Amino acid sequence: MKPRVELLCAGSELLQGQLNTHLAKLGALLASQGLALSREATLPDDRSAIAGALRSALSRSDAVIVCGGLGPTFDDLTREAASDALGAELRYVPRIFSRIKARFKRLRIRLPAENKRQAYVLAGARALDNERGTAPGQLLSLPPARPGGPRRTLALLPGPYRELRPILERDVIPFLRKRYGRSSFTDHLALHLGGIPESAADEKLKGLVAKAGPGLSFTILSYPGQVDFHAYIRGDSRRSAEACLREVRHEALAAVGRFLLWEGDSPLEAEVGAALTRAKLTLAVAESCTGGMIAAKLTDIPGASSFFLGGVISYADGLKKDLLGVSPRTLARHGAVSKECCKEMAEGVRARTGAEIGLSVTGIAGPTGGTASKPVGLVYIGVARPGRKAEVHELRLSGSREFIRARAATRGLQLVLRAALRRGK
Amino acid sequence: MKPRVELLCAGSELLQGQLNTHLAKLGALLASQGLALSREATLPDDRSAIAGALRSALSRSDAVIVCGGLGPTFDDLTREAASDALGAELRYVPRIFSRIKARFKRLRIRLPAENKRQAYVLAGARALDNERGTAPGQLLSLPPARPGGPRRTLALLPGPYRELRPILERDVIPFLRKRYGRSSFTDHLALHLGGIPESAADEKLKGLVAKAGPGLSFTILSYPGQVDFHAYIRGDSRRSAEACLREVRHEALAAVGRFLLWEGDSPLEAEVGAALTRAKLTLAVAESCTGGMIAAKLTDIPGASSFFLGGVISYADGLKKDLLGVSPRTLARHGAVSKECCKEMAEGVRARTGAEIGLSVTGIAGPTGGTASKPVGLVYIGVARPGRKAEVHELRLSGSREFIRARAATRGLQLVLRAALRRGK
Repeated sequence: MKPRVELLCAGSELLQGQLNTHLAKLGALLASQGLALSREATLPDDRSAIAGALRSALSRSDAVIVCGGLGPTFDDLTREAASDALGAELRYVPRIFSRIKARFKRLRIRLPAENKRQAYVLAGARALDNERGTAPGQLLSLPPARPGGPRRTLALLPGPYRELRPILERDVIPFLRKRYGRSSFTDHLALHLGGIPESAADEKLKGLVAKAGPGLSFTILSYPGQVDFHAYIRGDSRRSAEACLREVRHEALAAVGRFLLWEGDSPLEAEVGAALTRAKLTLAVAESCTGGMIAAKLTDIPGASSFFLGGVISYADGLKKDLLGVSPRTLARHGAVSKECCKEMAEGVRARTGAEIGLSVTGIAGPTGGTASKPVGLVYIGVARPGRKAEVHELRLSGSREFIRARAATRGLQLVLRAALRRGK
Repeated sequence: MKPRVELLCAGSELLQGQLNTHLAKLGALLASQGLALSREATLPDDRSAIAGALRSALSRSDAVIVCGGLGPTFDDLTREAASDALGAELRYVPRIFSRIKARFKRLRIRLPAENKRQAYVLAGARALDNERGTAPGQLLSLPPARPGGPRRTLALLPGPYRELRPILERDVIPFLRKRYGRSSFTDHLALHLGGIPESAADEKLKGLVAKAGPGLSFTILSYPGQVDFHAYIRGDSRRSAEACLREVRHEALAAVGRFLLWEGDSPLEAEVGAALTRAKLTLAVAESCTGGMIAAKLTDIPGASSFFLGGVISYADGLKKDLLGVSPRTLARHGAVSKECCKEMAEGVRARTGAEIGLSVTGIAGPTGGTASKPVGLVYIGVARPGRKAEVHELRLSGSREFIRARAATRGLQLVLRAALRRGK
């Protein structure tokens, strides 16, 4: 049986505009361990709301993970809410407070009195060391919800991801796998497609998708410029899961293989990096409207220096001339957002950095700055390579500034991927 | 009375690693309209899970907004789940299907048969036109949960944010404000602090925070390099809300005013842009370990070209020499991650772009590449300004590559903000 794992995130700020990245990160991490989340809830810093949500979650799930609300401050109420929900006492653990004191001493910060709250642990719970912060995690084993069912698990984890992740990986996941995960193996297929709309991908894949059932599920997702097909597979043995995956992959590629950009869980920028490295090519960028987004994505990847040299953010026209060598005549005659300027930017950044591939982007991201002949959303992307003329692609996008920039950055990376794959073969 | 508004997000992918940005965006938008979310849940593409969550949400809240699951494909189940939860029929509306057909014709795409599902609407619901996609929204008024209570509202919205937002702003928010929002006014104070740890800020603010109660709540949030203090105020009149805000602000500034970086809801990069514009200064960046992150943040801002010229991503050492004029001797003697190199980068990018302020960042983001004398986390940030020597700050950070880069980018922007404010006065 697949365990039902639920996540609760505590924090009023998460309901009022603060981005919650925990759900995505924990969701991926847990799914990879055969512990996919069945549900998530975000709750305000309100003791009774957290306690109520905990009660419901524990009544229907095998394991509940609560993130946040273990800090020292007045709005950190997870400990108290869990105590309410379970009817379990909070007990002061002197050893934990000694650790907190030692940490503050090491960091040469005066210890505020509030931090003592972090040394209270639910009766019966195991305290989980936090190497990167003051609040320890807590792990509690609970009786089954129904007679004969599996024992339930409650884990309380600190909010900051850098503190939470080591505790989750070292203590919580192994515990959950041992308790619930032994008998099932999971696998995941991800195909990333370009040049096909979502509904067309759906039609081509519907024969395969109709085979969904226990142990096999599918999702189709569409992004600016891309459609992703995911299959999640569960089997009783690693062998049966792998055999099912091979079959699904074979059938999916027969249906949409010609639109395939890449396979697997790595993001586009990592795939670009791997393809450049395999093909022994280096890349430099000249970004105008994307303003550094492509470079920032590429340098997210550890070891990016082996394929990425850097480049120029030529937001102002002067920089297109001075740092990239775009001719004043081109700018005067065709403007900065033109096929001609884009070509010179790609060739210029290649020449000035010594990279094998030069990628350039120039466009009008809006919301203002458009004209009748050059509307908001007009974007040119250029790719310069050794021994052939630079190619320039024109995009006509609609939507917000954010959307136009994201789509242009994705398309730029896709074009480099294609160039690197062609060369790598 | 403040209405209880709940958000449900449907999508298995959101539980398995796909980032959900809807909660943050809708949370901020709704809070600004006096309709702050009281709770959110993320659900799998599972008809009974969505129906069950809808039932619970409608039993305790005034308004429930469901995002996603209105697409044409097999895993879009929100319509059916709402029909189950309410016992309301789904009715085919020919006018909606005609619109969908017209849209496909305009885009010159063949209409897949699946899209017909999108023309079904809950009995009694109003269909809300979707100008940017095929699935219309649906708005349904429901009887009160308890006799004498307010009527409840259910809104179903398409998943893509660019489709959802216009429907929310044009149809749903005005409806909810009219029904629930008339009698209360909300205000929000945000103070952004630097150079103070979270627990110290908490201690200094605890006198103020003790005044929390109906209509007044507080949150303290800590980020890499920054602490934010938020106060949320609700009053019976705009005047009373404003008066309360003034009082809270006065007391907060008395406690932590000397750590104040800026006030208000705009992000750091927007504040940097506004300060540069006021001081009539332009900025250029030379980024190594942050690899374009600072430039990408600054160019997120519409109109960034009025203060941001661009710059150089000098990821490879060769580019530090060729594009920024760092001397080969400095690189040979001190290395690329050094105070000396950082200073020459800041001065170099200023000189080569003509910007008044040059910002440079060089460091070791890890996970590899550190040595005993230059460990992972060592980062230098330089600020060059007209008429004075460039200043260079040394940071010694710990944590992941992601954290080190984020912290370095924030610190760089904070230093530019400080320089611009000093000059602006």
